[in-house]
Amino acid sequence: MYAKKHYLCGMNQPLYSSGLLENVVNEFSRLPGIGKKTALRMALYLLKQDMDAVRQFGEAVIRMRSEVVYCKHCMNLSDTEVCDICSDPRRDHTLICVVESVRDVMAIENTLQYHGTYHVLGGVISPMEGIGPADLTIDALEKRMGENRAEEVILALSATMEGDTTNFYIARKLKDSAVKLSVLARGVSVGDELEYADQITLGRSILHRQPFEINGM
Amino acid sequence: MYAKKHYLCGMNQPLYSSGLLENVVNEFSRLPGIGKKTALRMALYLLKQDMDAVRQFGEAVIRMRSEVVYCKHCMNLSDTEVCDICSDPRRDHTLICVVESVRDVMAIENTLQYHGTYHVLGGVISPMEGIGPADLTIDALEKRMGENRAEEVILALSATMEGDTTNFYIARKLKDSAVKLSVLARGVSVGDELEYADQITLGRSILHRQPFEINGM
Repeated sequence: MYAKKHYLCGMNQPLYSSGLLENVVNEFSRLPGIGKKTALRMALYLLKQDMDAVRQFGEAVIRMRSEVVYCKHCMNLSDTEVCDICSDPRRDHTLICVVESVRDVMAIENTLQYHGTYHVLGGVISPMEGIGPADLTIDALEKRMGENRAEEVILALSATMEGDTTNFYIARKLKDSAVKLSVLARGVSVGDELEYADQITLGRSILHRQPFEINGM
Repeated sequence: MYAKKHYLCGMNQPLYSSGLLENVVNEFSRLPGIGKKTALRMALYLLKQDMDAVRQFGEAVIRMRSEVVYCKHCMNLSDTEVCDICSDPRRDHTLICVVESVRDVMAIENTLQYHGTYHVLGGVISPMEGIGPADLTIDALEKRMGENRAEEVILALSATMEGDTTNFYIARKLKDSAVKLSVLARGVSVGDELEYADQITLGRSILHRQPFEINGM
């Protein structure tokens, strides 16, 4: 099959019969993970939809870009200046969970296990990608901790070297404050079979074993 | 892994912090082959782009849907009433290539080997999907053949049972006309290794073997 691809290479540029269609295909294929073929498929699908549905599609995208803002407290995506979580009095505002991105907020909200607030860093420290502490919202976090009289900061970053570096940086920065600092529990995933867990995860989950509780699962 | 998925099922509905974002994710996830996760990825990507780029994206989609038409001769997608191919005097208008969809027009144009015109059927006869001859543009094809004084009609439909049925139907319908009827050559794909070709294809390619020409590849 390699030979086949090689033999035909450069012959796969479609010639569009419509400039407007070509335009849409180009727009779609700029999206992450979308190639020209998928883009064409999506454009032809939209061509078969009602005018109203397509107008709604296009306008939803434009409206989102122009109206969605970052919450001025936690930097989460929001339709209003202060997001629903930060403006909810039932939430524990003394508890701040530090995450990398808005996707992680969704993931944690999805667990229904957390009732504090968030702080979106906007990334992790990564010298390889040229991201330093100043590119993240660490200063805003410190300021907020004072304003909210924070009691606990949960570091919920990725379990990667960059995540660990960022954890370390934040921990050192906050070492003089009285706030309690914690990280997510690392261990075997729920539903995973033990034999497939990697050595380091399994090792940590033995070191950090917890008292067995009948209703604690 | 099955157990894991089962165990966690129903817990994977993201909670969006922005209604406008949720709206766009829903719009994207209606596109073919796009799930909620990919849709979210695309929406977050667009949020990071310039306002102008996003406006251009949304408007391109709306404009395509409202302005693209089907060519009144060949039913191909076009920005104008008559498409570029049908209005090109250098094209051989006595030669009509019958295809299933606009995608096939692109595929054949892409070969740079064809200089006639097209006729897009809009599908193939498929009793399973409830598509009969009346749902296709076969009558328009007959009418056009008269107007263009067609000399040859090339049936370039899929090599499936539905494609063959449609070929047969068109052939019977045109049997009294003087027009020459041909079908695409079936045989081993260029670049394919013989051992991987299926029996029927290989069998046909032996039956329909052609004189060897030094420059004919």
